[in-house]
Amino acid sequence: MIIQIKSPDQSGIIARYTTLLFNNNANILGLEQHVEDDKKLFYMRIRVDLDSLKISQESLKEKLENLSKELGASIRIFNASSALKVAVFATKEQSPVYDLLMNYRSGDLPCEIVCIVSNHNYMKDVAEDFNIPYHHIPITKANKLEQEKKTLELLNSYNVELVVLARYMQILSKGFVELYDERIINIHHGFLPAFKGQKPYHQAWERGVKMIGATAHYVTEDLDEGPIIEQDVISVNHQHSAKEMVKAGRDIERRVLTSAVKAHLERRIILHGKRTIIFHP
Amino acid sequence: MIIQIKSPDQSGIIARYTTLLFNNNANILGLEQHVEDDKKLFYMRIRVDLDSLKISQESLKEKLENLSKELGASIRIFNASSALKVAVFATKEQSPVYDLLMNYRSGDLPCEIVCIVSNHNYMKDVAEDFNIPYHHIPITKANKLEQEKKTLELLNSYNVELVVLARYMQILSKGFVELYDERIINIHHGFLPAFKGQKPYHQAWERGVKMIGATAHYVTEDLDEGPIIEQDVISVNHQHSAKEMVKAGRDIERRVLTSAVKAHLERRIILHGKRTIIFHP
Amino acid sequence: MIIQIKSPDQSGIIARYTTLLFNNNANILGLEQHVEDDKKLFYMRIRVDLDSLKISQESLKEKLENLSKELGASIRIFNASSALKVAVFATKEQSPVYDLLMNYRSGDLPCEIVCIVSNHNYMKDVAEDFNIPYHHIPITKANKLEQEKKTLELLNSYNVELVVLARYMQILSKGFVELYDERIINIHHGFLPAFKGQKPYHQAWERGVKMIGATAHYVTEDLDEGPIIEQDVISVNHQHSAKEMVKAGRDIERRVLTSAVKAHLERRIILHGKRTIIFHP
Amino acid sequence: MIIQIKSPDQSGIIARYTTLLFNNNANILGLEQHVEDDKKLFYMRIRVDLDSLKISQESLKEKLENLSKELGASIRIFNASSALKVAVFATKEQSPVYDLLMNYRSGDLPCEIVCIVSNHNYMKDVAEDFNIPYHHIPITKANKLEQEKKTLELLNSYNVELVVLARYMQILSKGFVELYDERIINIHHGFLPAFKGQKPYHQAWERGVKMIGATAHYVTEDLDEGPIIEQDVISVNHQHSAKEMVKAGRDIERRVLTSAVKAHLERRIILHGKRTIIFHP
Repeated sequence: MIIQIKSPDQSGIIARYTTLLFNNNANILGLEQHVEDDKKLFYMRIRVDLDSLKISQESLKEKLENLSKELGASIRIFNASSALKVAVFATKEQSPVYDLLMNYRSGDLPCEIVCIVSNHNYMKDVAEDFNIPYHHIPITKANKLEQEKKTLELLNSYNVELVVLARYMQILSKGFVELYDERIINIHHGFLPAFKGQKPYHQAWERGVKMIGATAHYVTEDLDEGPIIEQDVISVNHQHSAKEMVKAGRDIERRVLTSAVKAHLERRIILHGKRTIIFHP
Repeated sequence: MIIQIKSPDQSGIIARYTTLLFNNNANILGLEQHVEDDKKLFYMRIRVDLDSLKISQESLKEKLENLSKELGASIRIFNASSALKVAVFATKEQSPVYDLLMNYRSGDLPCEIVCIVSNHNYMKDVAEDFNIPYHHIPITKANKLEQEKKTLELLNSYNVELVVLARYMQILSKGFVELYDERIINIHHGFLPAFKGQKPYHQAWERGVKMIGATAHYVTEDLDEGPIIEQDVISVNHQHSAKEMVKAGRDIERRVLTSAVKAHLERRIILHGKRTIIFHP
Repeated sequence: MIIQIKSPDQSGIIARYTTLLFNNNANILGLEQHVEDDKKLFYMRIRVDLDSLKISQESLKEKLENLSKELGASIRIFNASSALKVAVFATKEQSPVYDLLMNYRSGDLPCEIVCIVSNHNYMKDVAEDFNIPYHHIPITKANKLEQEKKTLELLNSYNVELVVLARYMQILSKGFVELYDERIINIHHGFLPAFKGQKPYHQAWERGVKMIGATAHYVTEDLDEGPIIEQDVISVNHQHSAKEMVKAGRDIERRVLTSAVKAHLERRIILHGKRTIIFHP
Repeated sequence: MIIQIKSPDQSGIIARYTTLLFNNNANILGLEQHVEDDKKLFYMRIRVDLDSLKISQESLKEKLENLSKELGASIRIFNASSALKVAVFATKEQSPVYDLLMNYRSGDLPCEIVCIVSNHNYMKDVAEDFNIPYHHIPITKANKLEQEKKTLELLNSYNVELVVLARYMQILSKGFVELYDERIINIHHGFLPAFKGQKPYHQAWERGVKMIGATAHYVTEDLDEGPIIEQDVISVNHQHSAKEMVKAGRDIERRVLTSAVKAHLERRIILHGKRTIIFHP
């Protein structure tokens, strides 16, 4: 069981939750906490082993929820063993999709990748290689809304709980984003907040930067403005054309995206406004 | 107050310590724990604010010690506001000494640097720049033991609690090391366990490595075998001569040493055999 | 055309080669040189465009060889457009194999991967995904020599020019290594020269290092002692078990291996004793 | 002697310059070239040893200039042994100033630091430590123009050839910048083009980035828009307050600035519009 707490900062929070768990034979495997000073908010994540639990899981949840009410805290309780259902959206770029699938196959991504969705057919072979259902939903200006509706029905039919945009080059509508609030992760191939929007590597080349980056973030209504989960960079120099930057960037894009998805799946992320608190593995 | 706990792993450790603190109005500012699976040992560090403490500090300490006895745990309690007395040992290389002194002057190293000790006179000006007492204790093969005795008396007179070897090129005797067990930090200019001993950059050049490193570690009887606190590397290529590697390495040496010293001063390090557990700032 | 020169250092080397090329309308696309001071050896790599060449390629080669003879230099001339034939050897670990294949498919590795060889069957599906012939050559203590002979025949039948050991866990015989001298690249999952041999991550964990690394190198008779082509590291901490280090290391292993293979294929590597000179892309 | 060439790309450039040097017994120590494809411009830097030169340096220069005229190239010839005169401008932040001075003292910065200029008195002790003349030129809104005039006279009296803004918090006038075109280097404590202007760390904290950076660039009329020379980043997380980011950033600021100044002093930088070509050491 994984427990996420968000509470007004006050004395005794750790003592009270851990005592409640201890008294009911729920064994703490790991605990991490953080205080955001600007708003005096306390955040905590607890991983719990329930093998020796002496009450029912439901009773434990109820007790945890009652304590949270008392403290004015909000609590989220996750079943550590239930794998989230994930849909991967892609267009042309195979590298981040492969990386997700390989980590999935080797057991490093605790989820179930239920489908790959694409507006093109480039990823069909990859999906077949890994035995993942593939859905080709081509998009034109004319049919965009209709196709998005179809996509949402598809996600619904799979009970998708996380959408991963693995270099999916379409912008999702406001409605879509709201439906999957805090549940869409995008990889932007630039070091946000620099180089928002289209062709970030070309922007970077024009500006003559000496490092290029990639940013994984939650998708919000404002493009490339969502809370950042992970970033990384690599050095480039005058010998890199914009095209070579594209190639050089592939490696960090896939790494940053896979790592961000893993943090989400392991329930290690809590949002604090536009900022993310990422607890350790 | 900073509390370090080392205990056989068992249920309820976090609950019991945090409840004890809570019940006495000691406010937890931060808590971090870790379990070493190989030996089923539990480690924890708690930072506590005592402003509203409703018993005496002595009483609190006694209660904490009693609880530790009950759990079979060992506990170390540090006064967060008392700055450790530090002696810096140096020879020729000014860069790591400057870095320590600058971070000290800007308030980023919570300690009192009581003296600089050197077997040469290269660092005298630096010491004067920063108004630190300077002790020149030249060493020859003939007078080595005698001079070490003199050095120990000096450290004693300053009540030194941490010795930092900032590229001090002399090997300390077994007796010295035992007296300051877990209280001597050395910077080795190589990526341990590779390139132990003399002239690590020259060894690295001979072997044709593509990265060179620096390692800060506690000093034990076996040279360069002590528990590692921090490491870092930088890339080099065929254009670097051994001499250029020496120059390139200076930046990581000072950074790694200062960072390791800071972790020690902030009581963030616990030893687990030959390994170090480094809690976050 | 790519030209590699190794010459005793002397005046006029650059002038004489570039003038020879210029006089025959061979256009220089890139030139990089390096002097190893210890042995006063001059190294140079020139990329040449032959579109406007006014003599035959054979004549140009002859002239270049004659000049080299005159200077006491050795010269190697490569046809830039001819892709090397590569065999990939693997065992269980899929990640570095995938990385090679993906970069191959996207056109970033200028070679022809002619086969995958393995002593197990774990990689069969991967080979099929990418339409690469797969050869399962199981090895026991009893049949090792016999199977190696079979392997060599296989490489011969494919005219293999480079063998890439992508986490191939068998040690090649002295005879094999001599046959493919300077043409076998291995990825070692440790930061050489530290942690040679078996289970480097476990060795690293035992020693308590704070960074783990990967090293791509040419294979020589002495295991893990061959010239290093590329290295990289990532940070680890006390929370990483040896098993988690294995996982964390996968990303750098594949990156380092693919990058080293690319450097070889682009004829950017020249050996200087045990050291490698790696020219820029 | 160091030679920088900028020429329309054409056949034979390398051959003709290197032959000219060879024919006059000027020995090439290093040569690096680069072609910017977008504008078909060829760049080259040659380091030359003149010990055996059989004509006068003036004659060699004339020949090189004549050849450049013929090719339509521009050429800059520098005396490798003449150290540039450098003025360091600073305000409060001591770290980048110390780093410059320490590298200067150890001989790693081939220049003469002729003075430190500041609008405050924080750096006076540092200047004294290193025996560098210190000029306190306080600036208010009212006296800004007047004081800048005074500053320019000062630079003039020292024959300053490079101005280094080591966290100097004043904006220079258009006139000042034009006078020292391509000869003012600034360190910006943010990863440009993100976080321009004031308080970049606070901007970074607000946006919730996971890495913070520093950028050394030539100063042009548009603030923070000048050609980038060097950049670096470090990782941060939710535990870093804006204030802690400031501290964490110090290390990369000084490193990036010193490295950029070194590249300038070694004549390794050529501007291509808004981009910089940085040749290797």
